[in-house]
This record gives sequence, C-alpha cells and structure tokens, in this order.
Amino acid sequence: MSGAADETVALTLDEADALARQVLSAWGLAPDHAAAVAQTMVAGERDGCASHGLYRLLVAANSIERGVVACAAVPQVSEPAPALVRVDGQGGFAQLPFARGLPLLVDKARRHGIAAMAITNAVHFAALWPEVEALAGEGLVALAFTPSHAWVAPEGGTRPVFGTNPIAFAWPRPGRAPFVFDFATSAVARGEIELHRRAGKPVPPEWGYDAQGQPSTDAAAVLDGAMRTFGAHKGSALAAMVELIAGPLIGDMTSAESLAADAGRGGSPIGGELILAIDPAGFLGAGVEAHLQRAEALFAAIEGQGARLPGTRRLVARARSAQEGLRIPVALHQDILSVLARGRVRSDSASK
Amino acid sequence: MSGAADETVALTLDEADALARQVLSAWGLAPDHAAAVAQTMVAGERDGCASHGLYRLLVAANSIERGVVACAAVPQVSEPAPALVRVDGQGGFAQLPFARGLPLLVDKARRHGIAAMAITNAVHFAALWPEVEALAGEGLVALAFTPSHAWVAPEGGTRPVFGTNPIAFAWPRPGRAPFVFDFATSAVARGEIELHRRAGKPVPPEWGYDAQGQPSTDAAAVLDGAMRTFGAHKGSALAAMVELIAGPLIGDMTSAESLAADAGRGGSPIGGELILAIDPAGFLGAGVEAHLQRAEALFAAIEGQGARLPGTRRLVARARSAQEGLRIPVALHQDILSVLARGRVRSDSASK
Repeated sequence: MSGAADETVALTLDEADALARQVLSAWGLAPDHAAAVAQTMVAGERDGCASHGLYRLLVAANSIERGVVACAAVPQVSEPAPALVRVDGQGGFAQLPFARGLPLLVDKARRHGIAAMAITNAVHFAALWPEVEALAGEGLVALAFTPSHAWVAPEGGTRPVFGTNPIAFAWPRPGRAPFVFDFATSAVARGEIELHRRAGKPVPPEWGYDAQGQPSTDAAAVLDGAMRTFGAHKGSALAAMVELIAGPLIGDMTSAESLAADAGRGGSPIGGELILAIDPAGFLGAGVEAHLQRAEALFAAIEGQGARLPGTRRLVARARSAQEGLRIPVALHQDILSVLARGRVRSDSASK
Repeated sequence: MSGAADETVALTLDEADALARQVLSAWGLAPDHAAAVAQTMVAGERDGCASHGLYRLLVAANSIERGVVACAAVPQVSEPAPALVRVDGQGGFAQLPFARGLPLLVDKARRHGIAAMAITNAVHFAALWPEVEALAGEGLVALAFTPSHAWVAPEGGTRPVFGTNPIAFAWPRPGRAPFVFDFATSAVARGEIELHRRAGKPVPPEWGYDAQGQPSTDAAAVLDGAMRTFGAHKGSALAAMVELIAGPLIGDMTSAESLAADAGRGGSPIGGELILAIDPAGFLGAGVEAHLQRAEALFAAIEGQGARLPGTRRLVARARSAQEGLRIPVALHQDILSVLARGRVRSDSASK
C-alpha cells in the first residue's frame, strides 16, 4: 500500500463494522457501546459523510485518551413524566443511551401522540440524522437538537457563546427512505474550517472573527476566535433555541458550560440532546396514508423543478455502498490501524 | 387632520381595542372573534410591529369581503390523543380557536411534560409570537409553525412551493418578559417587497425570481414570481419542515393547496398551525428555578457583548406604549375609519 492521496482500501460494510468495533474495544469501550458507536460511524461512511464516518474512530479514541469518556457507562432510563423519557448517559458516548431509550420514546409517542426524550450527561461526536432517521423508520416524525462547545458568536456579537448546534428533522415516506435534514446552525461545519487550516487556505471573511473580534480570512484565527451562525439573526435565534431546549430545559450544560467543563482537554462535547417524536396517526387517525401522500406532492413540486431534497446525496451514496461496499483513503486506513495498535498497547499496559 | 406623512393620531390601548372591535363587528365578525382578533392587532401595534398592528384591520376586512372568513365560526376543540389538542377553526380567524384550545394545551403539557395543539381550517393573518408568548406566560416553552400561500421557491429552484412559513419560539424568564423570536423562513417578509413595489424601489436581486425564473430587482416581478428562503439550503429545509408539520401532519393544507383553494380571491391563507408546548418542570422537577437561571447566563453572555436578544425592540416599544399610548399615522386612521364606514353600510344593506 503506497500513500498516494487517491489510493483507497476496499471494505465491505461488515468489515468496516468489525474494524470499528475492534478499534473501540481496544480503547476499552464496553461491547454494547462499541457496537452502537460503530454502527453510527459505518452509517456515516456508507452515506458518503466521510467527516462523520470511520474518521471518527480517531476522534473517539482521542476523547477516550483525554479521559472524557466513561467507557463502561450504563445508561439509566427514566420516565420523568408520562410523555417524557430521560436517559442519563453516565458520561459515556451518546449512541447507546439513544438505543436504550428509543423503544420507550416510540411507545410514548404512539400512546400520547407526541413525546420527548432527553439524553443527558453523554459524549457527542456524531451527526443527528441517525437518530431522527431511526424514529422515521418507526413511522414517526422526529426532531433532534444538541449544543456542543462554545465556538459560535451570536449575530451582532463577535465572541463565542453558541455551539455549532445542529437541528435534525425526519419525515416518514411510505415505501421509501424518509425525508431527512441535519444541519449546523453555524455558517459552516467546524471541520470545514479545520480543513482550510490544514490546507493553508484562506476562509471567506463571513465565516467568522478572530480573537480581537475582527472578520478574518485566517482559518486558525477563526478557530481561536468565533465562527458565525448561518442566516444572520434568524440562524442566531435558532442557535439560541438549541442551547436552551437541549441545555437548561433538560438540566444539562450549555455549550459554554461544556467547553468550560472540558478544561482544555480537547475532548468531544459532553452534554445533552433533545429529541421530539410525533406520531402522524395521533392527529390523522385512519387518514395517515392519504395525508402522507399529500406530502409526496410537496416533494414532487420541489424535485419537479430540479431542486434537490435534503439528504438526496446521502441516499445515493448509501445505494452505491450497498452495491459496491466502502472505499476509504489508504492514509485514513493506516491511521485507523495505528490507532488500533496504540489502543492495544494501552490496554495491555493497563492490564499489567 | 391633514394628511402629512408624519402626522399621527393618539390612541390609548383601550381606545385602539374598542376601535378594532368596532370595525370587526361592523364587518360581521361575531363578538368573541372580534375580541380575540382585536387583542392580537392591538398587541402588534403596541409592540411597534406596524405591519401586524391596526393596519391588519384592512387586511381582515378584505378577507371578509372576499368571502374567505366564516365570521361566526364556532371552534371545535377535541383531544385526538392524550397529549394532543385539535381545534377545528371551522373557517373562522385563528385567534379564537387558539384561545379556546389554550387551557387544554397548557393542562396537557403540564400533565404529560409535552403536548401539541393543531389549529386547523382557520384563516391566518397574524404573527405567531402572541401564541408562543401566551404559553411562556404559563411557564411553558413553546414553538409554533404555520404555512401560508405558495410564494417562496425551494433553494435550487425558482418556482413557488413554500409559504413564508414562520417559526416562533418562546422561553419563560423568571420575573421578566419571555425570550421570544418569530421569523419568516422566506428571505424577507412579503410585506417588505410590497412596500418596495408601492415606493417604486428596486429590491436586492437575492430576494427572489421573476416568473421566468430569473433573479429580479423588480418588486412586482418578484411578487408574481417567487421569493427566496433565508439561509440558502438550510432555510429551505426549515420551510419544507413547516409545510409538513403544520400541513399534512395535522391534516391541513400545504401553502400550494391553500393558494389553490383561494382561487384568486386574494384572501389571507386558510390552513393549519402547529403549536408545541413543553413544561420545564417535566424534565427538571424541583430544579426548574436553578436551571432557568443557567439560561439567564446564556442571555447575559449574548447581551454582554452588545448583541441584541430577539424581541428586544418589541419589548422597548411595549414599555413605551404602556406609558404613552399608541400613535398611528393619520392616513392609516382615516383608512380604518373608512373601512369602518364601509362595513356599516355593508351590514345595513345585508340586514335589509
């Protein structure tokens, strides 16, 4: 294997899953956590989201190394109110708490028409679409929100207060993959600015500010300063909403509190996530099928004029991956293998 | 009274309310509807939102004249599921259905932790902030969504599919007015383009397209063509979400269906509205007060760097109106009086 940038390693979905679980287990993650986290990473890779794919193994190992992850956390599921589920992640990754709370959330949404689940005290590194897509797979409409670390300035300011604060939404479509979107309320993903920094490329001045509060085209300066929100004051308002409803509303940290709690370790954000689930049958009863068809007319009106529905690119990549398996850059594969080796050395020395 | 543009008429809040009810009653609106609609319009005027203030009396009268409003509609409240409220507006204005469903929504949110209310088959002309603010007044966190008429193109397209599709949010703040935002997912309010058209001023080319799908600076051409969403593909995704959750999810029309149903009459949109209410005590129990204080730290971090919280301008205007009463342009006052006179003539001839 040479290191040329365009060389790739082929992996089946099963091989990717096994590799991911191997790495995570080597780093001490309990098997149920490793399985849940691996599933999310393989789904990202499968859907063509390289930044949320197997690359995240490096991110997860980093968070474990820095001591921010409780690797054998046992999520605690509770029911604080008839239509509410809370899953305390006990300091572990957020995937297993989601999986543990999901059946109860689905059940409550069906029983009450609407329900909400708070995942608290969990480590977040992944996109939110796997969560809302899982709920749409149960026939439910879903929304999800999570803060992160304070990297983003409010509109009208220049100092970081908000996280990248994503909002995800899913709508079930009869006989096909759901309509799903998932986007940061920051102007761009933080990883995008990282990529510019590594490549030594300037960023557009509207992406953020330096630490002195001046618009800057220097990627490193913006990472040290503050990113901007998307959509000016409207995006800023939404970012504030995410802070509130996936922070204080569920008794968990804001992005500023989470960054402070990280205390310079550089781990993934620890905090909360709010997920809402609505059962279309609640309002529609036997009319569900007919009304979901009316939604299809909306999608047809969008696609019929050549506009793309959110998530289309992911579904195309997913179909290709199902046919052809995955291809990841040789350099990434090598990085993953060396992280695996480091994890094994670490666990060997820990067991001595 | 001369017609100079800067001349105003002074009205107390009570006088404004009485005038609004008088006009609406003259146009045949049942007293309970007239009271609910007047309250919303006076609140808009009081808060400095002239476009959603007493000016809307002309809009409401126009909708009645065009036959799109059931003036004596009796809203039907039902409970399709334990945490859901539905209020069928029976073709009347949306304010009374909201008021009729509100106590049940509040009760359900407190009982179940989260609840949703759908207002269906109602005429919408107002902003959404009065609704979410009323819920925050009960100590609840609230979200509201409504489609309108198909005036807005999806990102990547140039033909209208979405309404201006506002999203409103409110968060209760101990001892002070709630944190509230309410914005259209279109790039600008439709009324803004109307104002440019009347003034013969060009609009920025990024506001919309002409009927041939070309970016246009001609306000009239954009009104006949398509507006754009705010925030590119992210705003477009949110606009689609509003169509879905305040349309098919609650068994009511999309913006395209509502525009088609209007059949060229030019009335206000008829359709649905979805309101979500979450009780902070659901997740937080006795910790509500402490966690709401953590939200105050977020607001302080925003305002502390000179950025403005959404809704601040409204609260300043509200305080001024409470002190000084209202001042509306002489020309608007004259228009309102002539609409009042026309309504009286109309109801006299109807009763003969």
